[in-house]
Amino acid sequence: MNDKPILMGTDTISGVAPEILDSIISASRVKTLPYGNDIYTKECREIICKIFEKENLEIIPMMSGTASNSLALSSFLQSYGSIICHDEAHINNDEGGAPEFFSGGGKLISICDNLGKLKPKSLKTKIDNMSFKKKNTANISGVSITQLAENGTIYKKKEILEISKICKNHNMFLHMDGARFANALVSQNISPAEATWKLGVDCLSLGATKNGAMAAEVIIFFNNKLAFEAKNKIKQTGHVISKTRFISAQLNAWFKDGLWIKLAKSANNNAKYLSDQLSLFRDFKLLYPTEGNEVFLKIENKTYDQILKLKIIPNLWSKVNDDELVIRFVTSFETQKSQIDELIKRLSNQFIKT
Amino acid sequence: MNDKPILMGTDTISGVAPEILDSIISASRVKTLPYGNDIYTKECREIICKIFEKENLEIIPMMSGTASNSLALSSFLQSYGSIICHDEAHINNDEGGAPEFFSGGGKLISICDNLGKLKPKSLKTKIDNMSFKKKNTANISGVSITQLAENGTIYKKKEILEISKICKNHNMFLHMDGARFANALVSQNISPAEATWKLGVDCLSLGATKNGAMAAEVIIFFNNKLAFEAKNKIKQTGHVISKTRFISAQLNAWFKDGLWIKLAKSANNNAKYLSDQLSLFRDFKLLYPTEGNEVFLKIENKTYDQILKLKIIPNLWSKVNDDELVIRFVTSFETQKSQIDELIKRLSNQFIKT
Amino acid sequence: MNDKPILMGTDTISGVAPEILDSIISASRVKTLPYGNDIYTKECREIICKIFEKENLEIIPMMSGTASNSLALSSFLQSYGSIICHDEAHINNDEGGAPEFFSGGGKLISICDNLGKLKPKSLKTKIDNMSFKKKNTANISGVSITQLAENGTIYKKKEILEISKICKNHNMFLHMDGARFANALVSQNISPAEATWKLGVDCLSLGATKNGAMAAEVIIFFNNKLAFEAKNKIKQTGHVISKTRFISAQLNAWFKDGLWIKLAKSANNNAKYLSDQLSLFRDFKLLYPTEGNEVFLKIENKTYDQILKLKIIPNLWSKVNDDELVIRFVTSFETQKSQIDELIKRLSNQFIKT
Amino acid sequence: MNDKPILMGTDTISGVAPEILDSIISASRVKTLPYGNDIYTKECREIICKIFEKENLEIIPMMSGTASNSLALSSFLQSYGSIICHDEAHINNDEGGAPEFFSGGGKLISICDNLGKLKPKSLKTKIDNMSFKKKNTANISGVSITQLAENGTIYKKKEILEISKICKNHNMFLHMDGARFANALVSQNISPAEATWKLGVDCLSLGATKNGAMAAEVIIFFNNKLAFEAKNKIKQTGHVISKTRFISAQLNAWFKDGLWIKLAKSANNNAKYLSDQLSLFRDFKLLYPTEGNEVFLKIENKTYDQILKLKIIPNLWSKVNDDELVIRFVTSFETQKSQIDELIKRLSNQFIKT
Repeated sequence: MNDKPILMGTDTISGVAPEILDSIISASRVKTLPYGNDIYTKECREIICKIFEKENLEIIPMMSGTASNSLALSSFLQSYGSIICHDEAHINNDEGGAPEFFSGGGKLISICDNLGKLKPKSLKTKIDNMSFKKKNTANISGVSITQLAENGTIYKKKEILEISKICKNHNMFLHMDGARFANALVSQNISPAEATWKLGVDCLSLGATKNGAMAAEVIIFFNNKLAFEAKNKIKQTGHVISKTRFISAQLNAWFKDGLWIKLAKSANNNAKYLSDQLSLFRDFKLLYPTEGNEVFLKIENKTYDQILKLKIIPNLWSKVNDDELVIRFVTSFETQKSQIDELIKRLSNQFIKT
Repeated sequence: MNDKPILMGTDTISGVAPEILDSIISASRVKTLPYGNDIYTKECREIICKIFEKENLEIIPMMSGTASNSLALSSFLQSYGSIICHDEAHINNDEGGAPEFFSGGGKLISICDNLGKLKPKSLKTKIDNMSFKKKNTANISGVSITQLAENGTIYKKKEILEISKICKNHNMFLHMDGARFANALVSQNISPAEATWKLGVDCLSLGATKNGAMAAEVIIFFNNKLAFEAKNKIKQTGHVISKTRFISAQLNAWFKDGLWIKLAKSANNNAKYLSDQLSLFRDFKLLYPTEGNEVFLKIENKTYDQILKLKIIPNLWSKVNDDELVIRFVTSFETQKSQIDELIKRLSNQFIKT
Repeated sequence: MNDKPILMGTDTISGVAPEILDSIISASRVKTLPYGNDIYTKECREIICKIFEKENLEIIPMMSGTASNSLALSSFLQSYGSIICHDEAHINNDEGGAPEFFSGGGKLISICDNLGKLKPKSLKTKIDNMSFKKKNTANISGVSITQLAENGTIYKKKEILEISKICKNHNMFLHMDGARFANALVSQNISPAEATWKLGVDCLSLGATKNGAMAAEVIIFFNNKLAFEAKNKIKQTGHVISKTRFISAQLNAWFKDGLWIKLAKSANNNAKYLSDQLSLFRDFKLLYPTEGNEVFLKIENKTYDQILKLKIIPNLWSKVNDDELVIRFVTSFETQKSQIDELIKRLSNQFIKT
Repeated sequence: MNDKPILMGTDTISGVAPEILDSIISASRVKTLPYGNDIYTKECREIICKIFEKENLEIIPMMSGTASNSLALSSFLQSYGSIICHDEAHINNDEGGAPEFFSGGGKLISICDNLGKLKPKSLKTKIDNMSFKKKNTANISGVSITQLAENGTIYKKKEILEISKICKNHNMFLHMDGARFANALVSQNISPAEATWKLGVDCLSLGATKNGAMAAEVIIFFNNKLAFEAKNKIKQTGHVISKTRFISAQLNAWFKDGLWIKLAKSANNNAKYLSDQLSLFRDFKLLYPTEGNEVFLKIENKTYDQILKLKIIPNLWSKVNDDELVIRFVTSFETQKSQIDELIKRLSNQFIKT
């Protein structure tokens, strides 16, 4: 057993996939127009149209996931409007109030559902109750769901379809925070189109940063009308990067020859392996099925202290009560089976298997 | 039985108390400086200092309750901050996203407690859980409670004290939405000081409009430092009225010789009488003790239809399930016992007493 | 000579016209629905449609002039948009950044023209130059002019028509800040319709407060589409007054039997008389023709000190250089010829006539 | 003569300096904590403290120049405040209203001075005039100047000192938009400290993107107190990049061994050479001395058309009148003398030298 710390709390610890780095290097040797009027960004749009099987998609390459979500939401969230999301949604808990800021005061209305997923039934009840009073209630502009969901599981096609139907019935838009969209895709073995606009998703904040890129996200509008407001706000929110080509170059390499799928598959496989191994220990209670690249476990406080002493660094997720915690392990495209074996080996010296 | 509609769903249906009207008329005959530099506003501040037993209080006369709440909150709610309130709070449900707007994107974090009141214990748990994760969570700037509470009951001194202690422990400010503060005061028989700053309340949005005035509210800052930001924002939010004297003139008459207390007492007494009478009917289930001027009742949908046919117009409050509703009756300073007798008489012809 | 101070720096020093006060008193005796669902507001809309000779006008009764301007502008000013106005416009100089705030960051682009009036030619040049560069410049959403203009003169029909044509050619909206609209109307002897929508004005912030009301303004949308955004923002900006009837009651009395015209005419006549008298003094240089109820004069610093000693209080308007100032006198509906005579009498003892 | 287009309108057309690219590649091979808690960002801060000769400087690495300016300004620009800048300032003309947005409605007050530079005297007059009226004017929070100035010249030490003194006298902060700060530095041959905080600059938005980096800017706070607000807003504005190390890695390489100075010197030398050569042609009127890497020329419309036909692409800067234009050439760290020779060669075939 070596004593190097094993950082496995988030996928943003990872570096950059070699193919993506090569694409950046190659783009650095070219002179091209700034502000998105470059050949890489043009190509990026074409690739996305092809992969998502839809013509003339409007896209916005971005460098930050928070900005990608907030700018997408601001395309239909007015200052006097509101968005319904899960209480534990990243946009509600971890983005410092960015959706509220981008929309100049828009409101997130959160629903507490078990298991970190918005249930169609809860959504319907919420909308009904809000519509009941009508007067002076913030208008509901749309719904945002996260894929992978907040608990690392996948929104199934049927679930998304039900949610999008409720949205359509109430003239609301449906946004998907796809920070780990690729991880959801490979586990279901469906096409990008089948996972989004064919289910009624209006816009997708698709993340590459957690899955191989340096800093690359892209907003994809399946509803072209929505792009108008967002495009007007990119500059004002400071998210026009002068050398935009370097975002697009990352995305182009990420999509090329299915690299994004390959990287996500590797991360998912390792997460499943980790999850299976951890479940063998008596003191680790797996909270949700491991459907993507995240593993959530309930442990006692003292177990957490023991783990840290073994130089294993998970993400401290939440407090259950005064004695118990939830921790999260996340694998990335870079994670090696050998790292997991080393992690399990360290635990085996300390913890009993059932 | 006459067939005039009985409007008793809210206290904003009422007119203006004669003493207050006289004060407006008197102020209209004087020439004085605009924008709050008038003698009425100076006097208003002195009266409030005296009534609240505290020197040099900063005050802001306002014309709208929503603005009074939002401007008060914006004194400590930053765009990147958040306020904890009850899920059913007026600021969360009925003000069209005004607190979010006034603060440029601040966030309301709501807690669902039964009975429409924020419980100290729930508040503590929420803060603990949010502090647990720290990173990137919207900073909690303060807490807002409503007096009368959302369900028409009173926050007792002990409850407020516990809440304010939690606030002080976490460097948070405590705001009180006192739209029906006078109604809470008379039922407890305590002084304005004992009901606010002596319990740790940092600022109060005190409402006169529901209790005799035409359009008069006043923000009272018990923590002078808070007034700075709010005073800087009055003009920018469009809430400087050129002839400010007409707000102050209303408030001065309202406070004079305990008029505000007298008016609130009358409304409360009539609410209690109404509540007692309604409780006698089998189909009306009183939901909460009637401690102020609001009466909340659970009834079946069909009962509601029958009431409307009797030309009795309560406020449709919320939906319980597919068969049941909550309605609210509100008495005002103008309500007469005879109106309640007439209302009960109409019901008696239709509904059975237990 | 008595020694009572003569306050004549602004029309907001004035009280309330008796007819308007009567209307308030009468409205205070009625129970009616809150939030604008009352009979007074319904009637107000009908009166305005009749007076402005246009069916189905959308209106919003307001209590503050700043809010009336900002809410009107926010109906077409996006956060990423801009409005062109005169450098000395009230919205640019005297409203604490309210238009920027209401629009969540919209921009005012100011043009410096002599004589406090936006010239069509300057407007055209500005738009041409901004369009020339295109990229990343804040989009120009519209233009705002003030009637009476910043220097107390009147925008003539021809001038407004030229400005509105430029607006239409560039898909921009035209807003009129009509804080002293009535004063402009009587001096030209044209109809309200001829002075607004027939010239291409899209929305008017019409002020009654300076001309007889307690606190009453009204936004009139000649372009119905514009009302949508503004109506969505009233509650969020805190400008829904629960007992809205009291604003409408003021407006209804103001419009009745041409009261608004009568009051403005009186103010204008007195301003002309004052202007003529002041022009006789050697040390007072009249800066602009007195076309409404404002008189602008250039004087030396020492003259200003002398005036104050005579207990005459004009408005200190601006600094010309280290030795000279601009002061403004404003008459109101209440101003009496005798007051002006008294003012002139005081001056005569001190200053030499030419 | 080849027929490849010569793009020389802006320095953002350029790629990435090899040393900076190597640093990115090296950082991509390391696992480190996200959100700025990485070793590269720690090192970056230390380097900047050393280079700017000041301990404990607060810094914020950014990816966009617009965001870097706006976030820096929002550290002292409140929603109800204002900033004075030159009428042609990038923040006023080319950033889509970002400063207004980041501050939730703050105002830019622009001064028109000839030659694209804010003159101390004009600044003083503006402040005096605004202070004169006081009431309801947006508070002036600070001043922003651009180095290189809008016209490509350098603010001299004496000029900045005079401006900063005015700021200090009025409790205002001084921000420097240093998009081309390095280019200003090398031409003056002074130290970074002498060019900033020793002259009274409170915060600097320092740009590396135009001078060798891929996407790297950094806000440097010489006044530590200012960093507080800005740091609270980074996440909310979407400008926290999860793998922050990649910005810091660029900056570290840029600063190392004086690379930033070397790159700027090369660009400046080539600009001077280009400027000298262009001045020889009769139809090109050099507008300002070439002190950095920008060359501004006044030409006739038809000259512009002829240039484009030669496949020379300058930046179309502004319109002088119906017949004349201003164009701008910008050299970058990558520009080669041979490119300029080729450009001059093409022009020589068409235009006459004086």
